[in-house]
Amino acid sequence: MDELAHAGLGPRPFARWADPEDTAVPSSKVPVWLVRRLGGLTPSPAVPVSDIPVPPSALPPAAADALRSAVGTAHVDLDAPARLAHAGGQSYLDLVRRRAGHEVAVPDAVVSPGSHDEVAAVLAVAGEHGFAVVPYGGGTSVVGGVEPVGGVGGSVPGGPPRRAVVTLDLARMDALVAVDEVSRTATFQPGVTGPRAEALLAPYGLTLGHVPQSFARATLGGYVATRSAGQASTGYGRLDELVVALRLATPVGEVRAGTGTPNAAGPDLRAVFVGSEGAFGVVTEVTLRVRPRPVEHRYEMWVFPSFEQGLAAVRAFAQDCSRPPDVVRLSDEEETRTTLATQGAAGRALAVYVRTRAGRTPAVCVLGWEGAAGTTSEARSAVLPVLRAHDAIRVGARAGQAWRRHRFAGPHQRDVLLDAGALVETVETATDWADLTGLYAAVSTALATSVAGCGTPPLVFAHVSHIYPTGASLYFTVLARRLADPAAAVAQWADAKAAASEAIRSAGGTITHHHAVGRTHAPYLEGEIGPVGARVLAAVKAALDPAGILNPGVLVQPPGEPPSGRDGVRPEE
Amino acid sequence: MDELAHAGLGPRPFARWADPEDTAVPSSKVPVWLVRRLGGLTPSPAVPVSDIPVPPSALPPAAADALRSAVGTAHVDLDAPARLAHAGGQSYLDLVRRRAGHEVAVPDAVVSPGSHDEVAAVLAVAGEHGFAVVPYGGGTSVVGGVEPVGGVGGSVPGGPPRRAVVTLDLARMDALVAVDEVSRTATFQPGVTGPRAEALLAPYGLTLGHVPQSFARATLGGYVATRSAGQASTGYGRLDELVVALRLATPVGEVRAGTGTPNAAGPDLRAVFVGSEGAFGVVTEVTLRVRPRPVEHRYEMWVFPSFEQGLAAVRAFAQDCSRPPDVVRLSDEEETRTTLATQGAAGRALAVYVRTRAGRTPAVCVLGWEGAAGTTSEARSAVLPVLRAHDAIRVGARAGQAWRRHRFAGPHQRDVLLDAGALVETVETATDWADLTGLYAAVSTALATSVAGCGTPPLVFAHVSHIYPTGASLYFTVLARRLADPAAAVAQWADAKAAASEAIRSAGGTITHHHAVGRTHAPYLEGEIGPVGARVLAAVKAALDPAGILNPGVLVQPPGEPPSGRDGVRPEE
Repeated sequence: MDELAHAGLGPRPFARWADPEDTAVPSSKVPVWLVRRLGGLTPSPAVPVSDIPVPPSALPPAAADALRSAVGTAHVDLDAPARLAHAGGQSYLDLVRRRAGHEVAVPDAVVSPGSHDEVAAVLAVAGEHGFAVVPYGGGTSVVGGVEPVGGVGGSVPGGPPRRAVVTLDLARMDALVAVDEVSRTATFQPGVTGPRAEALLAPYGLTLGHVPQSFARATLGGYVATRSAGQASTGYGRLDELVVALRLATPVGEVRAGTGTPNAAGPDLRAVFVGSEGAFGVVTEVTLRVRPRPVEHRYEMWVFPSFEQGLAAVRAFAQDCSRPPDVVRLSDEEETRTTLATQGAAGRALAVYVRTRAGRTPAVCVLGWEGAAGTTSEARSAVLPVLRAHDAIRVGARAGQAWRRHRFAGPHQRDVLLDAGALVETVETATDWADLTGLYAAVSTALATSVAGCGTPPLVFAHVSHIYPTGASLYFTVLARRLADPAAAVAQWADAKAAASEAIRSAGGTITHHHAVGRTHAPYLEGEIGPVGARVLAAVKAALDPAGILNPGVLVQPPGEPPSGRDGVRPEE
Repeated sequence: MDELAHAGLGPRPFARWADPEDTAVPSSKVPVWLVRRLGGLTPSPAVPVSDIPVPPSALPPAAADALRSAVGTAHVDLDAPARLAHAGGQSYLDLVRRRAGHEVAVPDAVVSPGSHDEVAAVLAVAGEHGFAVVPYGGGTSVVGGVEPVGGVGGSVPGGPPRRAVVTLDLARMDALVAVDEVSRTATFQPGVTGPRAEALLAPYGLTLGHVPQSFARATLGGYVATRSAGQASTGYGRLDELVVALRLATPVGEVRAGTGTPNAAGPDLRAVFVGSEGAFGVVTEVTLRVRPRPVEHRYEMWVFPSFEQGLAAVRAFAQDCSRPPDVVRLSDEEETRTTLATQGAAGRALAVYVRTRAGRTPAVCVLGWEGAAGTTSEARSAVLPVLRAHDAIRVGARAGQAWRRHRFAGPHQRDVLLDAGALVETVETATDWADLTGLYAAVSTALATSVAGCGTPPLVFAHVSHIYPTGASLYFTVLARRLADPAAAVAQWADAKAAASEAIRSAGGTITHHHAVGRTHAPYLEGEIGPVGARVLAAVKAALDPAGILNPGVLVQPPGEPPSGRDGVRPEE
């Protein structure tokens, strides 16, 4: 995993994931096959950033001065470039709006604390001056989790009745605080990115092994805040399984949760803060389980005669194998077809081979094993009987390694597709095995029907990438022609997302397996956790953030406001 | 595991775990060796139950009538025998008090609901009439978790300013609600005991595999409420890892938590209710992960040259083995000596063998593997290199199987020791590997010093029975002569417990790895979770149980009351 330490990117450009010059992932063009499938695309470049109007900061000067006292003058930025650079996350709609240069909300200031105490000081200033604080790690939220929303309640003279909003950028807090090699834990500050965490652990021969697709930019604090899953969750565990202890700054004081091992000292308070999305406090330290760095990485592609057969096999991995593969990623038939069709001559040749060997409805599956020298071969042997029992054919290591090499490519490919004029977004959910195929069918249909209804015939496909003994995740990708008018493009996707969310609710899925709630899923949260569950969250919010300054509208709605960000379509009553 | 289905016991006698006639575990006598070690014991029979005074029920007649309407006349019991039978849990001090027949608190009524709706109805009646409700499963709490404490706030005419208290016995709710064989989950009502759960799952070829020492009596609702660990936690997972979904009745309405798989829909609310000890709501349904019943049970005893070597080995199991043994239980040198010395001629012969092979400070270790046909041998082979690397000697399967046969014997042995006049109690904690030996030394010393200070030289020993990648549990047993005067006997142990608790706090351990907080550990909870953590619990309590009717004094202290049950010695300020 040594290359992980070098997978970081430079500063994020305004309306993209990465600059075209970033070489972390080879650049690509939109395949002709795909353009044809979508009924043609019209290239649609982004407007220059310099054309984006940025309103003057609404932060009162006294508040700005207090912030400068709290974190140092150099770390309070009210200028337009910094504020634009923190204009929300990286969802498709975020990028569509930024490309069009309209409806771009920016924070009133960007503040960069350097320590737990400085975070606490910023929260104290916010409480005193009545502005909102949006904690910000890598800015990779795709659910509106870092949108600069101040909420109602402030008093900006002459302005709208909204509070000023300060984005709290944790990038400066990027240190490794401690390593306990005996207990195999490491304590980090929250602004450490995925690549930096790996670089910091490398001298100890350790790895975190947590690799979400946002790896290059996302931070450990963000992993905690969003209950991240990671592509290798089957082997390394979800982030919530890696969190040993937490330290947070809240408006009412510091809190530490976790005692080094599981215990029975009342409810596990780690779980109150993991997934709290910056609404209850700001993570200032996280202690995570770490492991010896693997020296073997064995990735292979296999193909099943159908998605259904593949599902049965990966369920057997999760339920019957004492060590399932560390990475399991099963594509449905449409994703298989698209993947092979968009990879040039090699992909076409592979498609012929796959169809010859596995039949007319092949479903490819990437399996990965990582570990100490000599261990992956044994682990692989242990699952071969399951693969054989489900008529899987081995495609080989080259295709598996290719997947691994390109596993962080999604956001880069999205940049290319956005430039080309495509709609490209994902929807993810999960449920138990008994309900998985029903959920798959319901969401696929809802997405396809909604997008087709706009006159933009879509390509909808899915994969399973997180398996558990009781169920699995589903990750859908939607591709279509993007409507030319920016407002229409926004509505095109908002409608599809609403249709998918309703389908998820009806079919018993979760509104989010690993993207988090943010503002996009806010209207659906109470439907999932019920009114008493919502009451629990509101009670914790009121106890820890009585003035409601932290990430307004996330997890708990301010009194009198409906649970809906601008992308959060309210479910029909 | 088929014998598990038959390990239940008859009704619990008043001052013991089981009647001498209960044949679940072979009866035993206190070994001469032990009597000599403790400096002699004076047999001390319990007073007859009929001598225990039971005050008249303080439940107002109107409240009793409302309860009869809620659950049916037959299920509201105000008579002395039923109230005495629900006089708290099964801690050493509970039994010492009952044996002496003084300071025995009993509830004002025992109510037995038959459904979720009836539980909700009882809570509504409690809210209306202002009495407290103590949820009660198997009554096996050893931390005062089911003590009939009403708390202050009621208005019993002519009585003390305390509320009446109703024990909510969930024994009638003992059904298997649903089995999902595809998703490998089973949904139960809360009053199902361990043996009954196994009996209900047997026809499906499934097992829960959760075997706390209280197995014969404890209930699934109690497992949930206390975040139970179970002797086989290494293989089967702790209870919190088995909980897929929960349904609870709270004073403000029903709540369901859990969606079948992990998700990222905000904080994991299952964790708010698992370990909530009846203070936030009453579990009315629990969906648990289940597994195929194992057909092989391979238990062995090994011996290390020292406890320290054993610790290094079991740490390697947890950190480096992809499948550690399902049961791991490592005794320290004193526990090893005691175990062998108290098992007659066979034990003495084994002691000679062990000392010859492993040296002068042997530490025995039970390892257990369970699984499908042909799988345990492979799993065992995988850890042999670790055993060899730490100079472990195989004692054999017979000693391992004997441990397994007697693994639920602890409470029965305690009965015998109590009759014989012994002090016998346990203290458990956990911490990370780096701090484990320091914690072990600190608690051992604190217990030994305190008990010796009473002129009753103790035997103190410990084992590790729950291993994690980051740390492990420690489970101490204390044996000594019990002071003859009941009040002195209570003080003898209360002082030792306070000393151990302070040692745990100083050495960075958790106040409880798996016994829960209850009223005994209440004074130490805030020290562990901090004032902001305590504020979170108080906020959830206020939101879900605004009148404070549920298990008063557990997890959250009623306003104005110090965090202390009668066994909860307040830490020095």
